Amino acid sequence: MRTVQGEVESALSKLFGYAPITYGAGRTDAGVHALGQVMSVHDVPADLDVDKIKDSLNGMCAPFIAVSSCRTVDGQWHARFSARSRMYAYAILEASVPDPFLAGTTLWHPEPLDLAAMTEAAGHLLGPHDFSSFGRVADPSASAERNLFELQCERVDGIVRITARANAFIQQMVRSIVGTLVHVGEGRRSPDDMPSTIAARDRSAAGPVAAPHGLCLVAVEYDEGWSGARRR
Amino acid sequence: MRTVQGEVESALSKLFGYAPITYGAGRTDAGVHALGQVMSVHDVPADLDVDKIKDSLNGMCAPFIAVSSCRTVDGQWHARFSARSRMYAYAILEASVPDPFLAGTTLWHPEPLDLAAMTEAAGHLLGPHDFSSFGRVADPSASAERNLFELQCERVDGIVRITARANAFIQQMVRSIVGTLVHVGEGRRSPDDMPSTIAARDRSAAGPVAAPHGLCLVAVEYDEGWSGARRR
Repeated sequence: MRTVQGEVESALSKLFGYAPITYGAGRTDAGVHALGQVMSVHDVPADLDVDKIKDSLNGMCAPFIAVSSCRTVDGQWHARFSARSRMYAYAILEASVPDPFLAGTTLWHPEPLDLAAMTEAAGHLLGPHDFSSFGRVADPSASAERNLFELQCERVDGIVRITARANAFIQQMVRSIVGTLVHVGEGRRSPDDMPSTIAARDRSAAGPVAAPHGLCLVAVEYDEGWSGARRR
Repeated sequence: MRTVQGEVESALSKLFGYAPITYGAGRTDAGVHALGQVMSVHDVPADLDVDKIKDSLNGMCAPFIAVSSCRTVDGQWHARFSARSRMYAYAILEASVPDPFLAGTTLWHPEPLDLAAMTEAAGHLLGPHDFSSFGRVADPSASAERNLFELQCERVDGIVRITARANAFIQQMVRSIVGTLVHVGEGRRSPDDMPSTIAARDRSAAGPVAAPHGLCLVAVEYDEGWSGARRR
């Protein structure tokens, strides 16, 4: 399977003459998009020209992969372990008529969603919780506790956008939260049920995993600031 | 091969219980988009509820096909033959860094284009011409004369948009015009060469056929006005 990391690694291998070690800030499931992904490359040539590397990578990986900036960092810096938080956004097109031009980046929902109920439900999820009801950890003995700093539901120009920011996420966590909030927005679940859904620590207690194509890794936060997410 | 017309016809067949005869206002090559395509359906049930048909079609064909409106017309009205003109737009992302979110609907061009030269070249193409240098007609004995009412090059937010409006177009005409104008914008052709390029009536005299994914059938004009192109 082709992956963004694989394509960039393959291009770097051609440029460097050897296969470098790379890390991404956050893994994304197949079909999930990224605006602000960050990759650290851990063994680069001594005479590295970062602007030239950026242009070469864009020439080799375009148009479905883009390198928006490239710079040298301290040897201890790590795209994944140095990250303080990640921000994801999930987009839902709330319209009776679908939009083919947004079909690859939004979930189409023909009926209006109850945004007030979704916002109330989202409030219960904030803070540190064991999120076992909303995803899985690769290693079952590892903790599923994560700290959800922000979970916002807003409607702009017919798009319902759910923004989630946490120190880190367990697998499928954002999409499971979205699937659950959509059920709340449809009146199939009550916001009042959220505390018991969290407490169950059982994946079957929450709603379905929302389709991947509506999700986007928007930006990653480091000590020195956020990764540069571009948005048209 | 799956086509928009084929998908809609298949859905109509299920709704009507028979396969209706349909016509599209303009055929589009594989990979070309449409915002304002129009289809006429020529043998519909007597008790037709157009709003219900619209919702059913959207439910069956979404999310990469959308029916934005649906109405009954006079029996003589024909999506193709009643059309007075068609408007296409070709989008080119002029940026050193590609944009994966626009990769499906724009052509990426890393170097700046000379818009003044392209506009000058475009002026030569206006009006009625034999456009044999810029495409082909299915039947070689048929005329390749078409009347180009408008051919505009503009730059908005880093996107160069080429808008073409004509009574009708021969096959690959917009994409061949775009490929030629891009060569002018790159300085590889002079605007002064356009009259002889047209006069050659030879496909090899003009530039290459631009990639299909940058092109979009924006709207179709009828006696009663333009088809409703939506644009976000």
